[in-house]
Amino acid sequence: MIKIDYNFALKDIIGDKGISINEIEKLRGKSLEVHKRIIQEINNQKIGFYQLLNQDLVELKNKVDVYKQKFKNMVILGIGGSSLGAKAIYNALDKNSPRNLFILDNIDPDFFIDFIEKLNLDETCFTVISKSGTTTETISQFLIILDKVKNRFQQDFKERLIIITDPSKGGLREYVNNFKITSFDIPQNVGGRFSVLSPVGLVPLYFVDINIDKLLEGAKDYSKICLKESIFENPSYLTALIQFISFFKGKNISVLFAYSKFLENFVEWYKQLWAESLGKEEKFGFTPLKAIGVTDQHSLLQLFMEGPDDKIITFIKIKNYKKSLSIPKIDETNYYSYLFEHNLNEIFNYEFESVKVALAKRGKINYTIYIDMLDEYHLGALIFYFMIKTVFTGYLFKIDPFNQPGVEEGKNFTYGLLGRKGYENKKIEFENFMSKIRQQFII
Amino acid sequence: MIKIDYNFALKDIIGDKGISINEIEKLRGKSLEVHKRIIQEINNQKIGFYQLLNQDLVELKNKVDVYKQKFKNMVILGIGGSSLGAKAIYNALDKNSPRNLFILDNIDPDFFIDFIEKLNLDETCFTVISKSGTTTETISQFLIILDKVKNRFQQDFKERLIIITDPSKGGLREYVNNFKITSFDIPQNVGGRFSVLSPVGLVPLYFVDINIDKLLEGAKDYSKICLKESIFENPSYLTALIQFISFFKGKNISVLFAYSKFLENFVEWYKQLWAESLGKEEKFGFTPLKAIGVTDQHSLLQLFMEGPDDKIITFIKIKNYKKSLSIPKIDETNYYSYLFEHNLNEIFNYEFESVKVALAKRGKINYTIYIDMLDEYHLGALIFYFMIKTVFTGYLFKIDPFNQPGVEEGKNFTYGLLGRKGYENKKIEFENFMSKIRQQFII
Repeated sequence: MIKIDYNFALKDIIGDKGISINEIEKLRGKSLEVHKRIIQEINNQKIGFYQLLNQDLVELKNKVDVYKQKFKNMVILGIGGSSLGAKAIYNALDKNSPRNLFILDNIDPDFFIDFIEKLNLDETCFTVISKSGTTTETISQFLIILDKVKNRFQQDFKERLIIITDPSKGGLREYVNNFKITSFDIPQNVGGRFSVLSPVGLVPLYFVDINIDKLLEGAKDYSKICLKESIFENPSYLTALIQFISFFKGKNISVLFAYSKFLENFVEWYKQLWAESLGKEEKFGFTPLKAIGVTDQHSLLQLFMEGPDDKIITFIKIKNYKKSLSIPKIDETNYYSYLFEHNLNEIFNYEFESVKVALAKRGKINYTIYIDMLDEYHLGALIFYFMIKTVFTGYLFKIDPFNQPGVEEGKNFTYGLLGRKGYENKKIEFENFMSKIRQQFII
Repeated sequence: MIKIDYNFALKDIIGDKGISINEIEKLRGKSLEVHKRIIQEINNQKIGFYQLLNQDLVELKNKVDVYKQKFKNMVILGIGGSSLGAKAIYNALDKNSPRNLFILDNIDPDFFIDFIEKLNLDETCFTVISKSGTTTETISQFLIILDKVKNRFQQDFKERLIIITDPSKGGLREYVNNFKITSFDIPQNVGGRFSVLSPVGLVPLYFVDINIDKLLEGAKDYSKICLKESIFENPSYLTALIQFISFFKGKNISVLFAYSKFLENFVEWYKQLWAESLGKEEKFGFTPLKAIGVTDQHSLLQLFMEGPDDKIITFIKIKNYKKSLSIPKIDETNYYSYLFEHNLNEIFNYEFESVKVALAKRGKINYTIYIDMLDEYHLGALIFYFMIKTVFTGYLFKIDPFNQPGVEEGKNFTYGLLGRKGYENKKIEFENFMSKIRQQFII
């Protein structure tokens, strides 16, 4: 069960800085248009991630089972949307699998080289993930690993690889076809940051015994609620509207404040989704900020309380914990008698509620996503909630939430510097710009 | 060596969105005033962290050596400024020690309880860190651990504890005095977020064989540069001025974009320092955002390039890597021939420079802190750079960078809910506010 409490976003409750129900009502017409567009694009399969809810997992499981029997470790070579989803879910859940998942989402030389030097190749398979098949970082990693694995295992190297990429295009697909490597498709209508419920997320998660059926079931069940037409019954739409209204009141920062040590990577997944989908046209987009309770009460809270009024805060709170423990009564520490016999869970809850109320009393808009417990089912539901919320917000802004044109420039300069054919002009452009640098402005 | 390149912050280089040298010059008078204030406060010991540069480490080392000989693990019970500094330095450096450091900076029940259930108590000592001696989270952990350790080791429990707290006040100091526990002082003029070079950081770091002499030496050497009067020769002052000027041009977000997998926790340390020191008076303060290169090129870069013009980006780039590796030439992957034989370090550098130039070409203000290598010396220097920059920025805003009044409200509600004497009214206030909540606004 997921419940969203938006009391503390409302003027009636927190005062003038809040949003009025009337302001939300005014967007009813616009919201209905966006809703119709979303339903239409689900039906004509432009919004591809919706189709994933009904995928048959038999073949995927059969293929991955072969690797589960042979290997103790899976290493993912992938970055951005190719790794953030699996990392989010894997780190949110208990590690009960005899197998391990490692995610190499950086080519920082000291990190990457050290990792592969220490790796036991015999026990490890590699999953290369890149939709385009051209991601410089992932391909660099792939070539280094391929060389190592071929040198060691000769023709058997193929048994140690999985490639997840576009169904028909790109160098990785070509490689799959030429060498008959086990592969999975990333559907053409599913972009990286919307791909966690595709093989991109499911293959590695199934390898480490995450219940991927439950993940999809949670997403599917909650999709019925997150696609309701009525904005006051639809958590994705309603909270998107709260964000949208706040944006035009100067709130350019969206904090996701998760009261769980286990949701750190989930917030990183959200950050990409929210930032890359909505940061467009030099004017739209919220900057997503991660906060983790209770830790960041001692780091960011001062700013949230007394900094500029530029934030809207989404809390995530888990209702039921797996563990429980009480503070012991120790006579010699009577100084702290007010803590004695309180349960740790109770203290954690009190801290959360105290922060929420302290912010609300200052008129700082916030709302809370309550989830019953941290498991596959609820994580699936949360994923769907955030994805539809993001698309809805994008369409409210009248932007395309599925593209990311702004990252091309940097990629093209890198191709130019690497000497890739066709990018000679980008190298010249880069060098011309760099030639403006003056030594006097370096201290 | 540290060099700061601020070319890409300047109008002359990146165009109209940049800052002019003239705008900086105009703040010369104001800067001189702030500089004089800083020197005065160093001299009269209001800025306490400066004194730490000259501390004698002999006694600290002797006391910690006893624990190094007996224990394999040290667990820090501390949150915010009591743990972020040690975590930052520890995770930035190679782990060559036979001993381990664990940092419990959260009371998330499922995290904390699971951790202590699995811990080998025989091999472990505990360092409790709280300046006030009243931090609810840390004290809760302390009481739980104290109970466990006393049950198991009876009178020997004392040998397994270290307490770092105020020299004279609070419950922890009282406990130290009553039971003769090994303890260290947090100087009264050093607040949590400025305490990494005090025993708060040095005790745990020395336990795991970090070279704390070099850490202080780096800070001390660079302090000479970061306290120069001339703004164009002082990296802390100059970049503070760039931030300050940008703030009034609508840049309320400070990105720290570190091109190193090892600096993730360093950025978390910076986030507290920057957010908690400057977020004041409901109008000042930047929201600090963490970005890690190259990973976040595939997550946040789209927003930095094409989102609202509300950010100023500080890059950190390490010049020399410890490891090196070339991309192999593999004939069958000719599709990627442009990568062959390039060194991974080279590719990492190209990506960094490409992103920096792509941003600058769009007029996105950025500057880069280059450090020769990731070691204790340079980390010490970086710490001092950021601390003085923060104080200088605070004084430019005419606010107190050393207090954090905004966090009291939440703490007091928690005390009220826990039933602490003297906080009965806070409980009533909390409950009155919560009674406004309407079920209809929960979906």
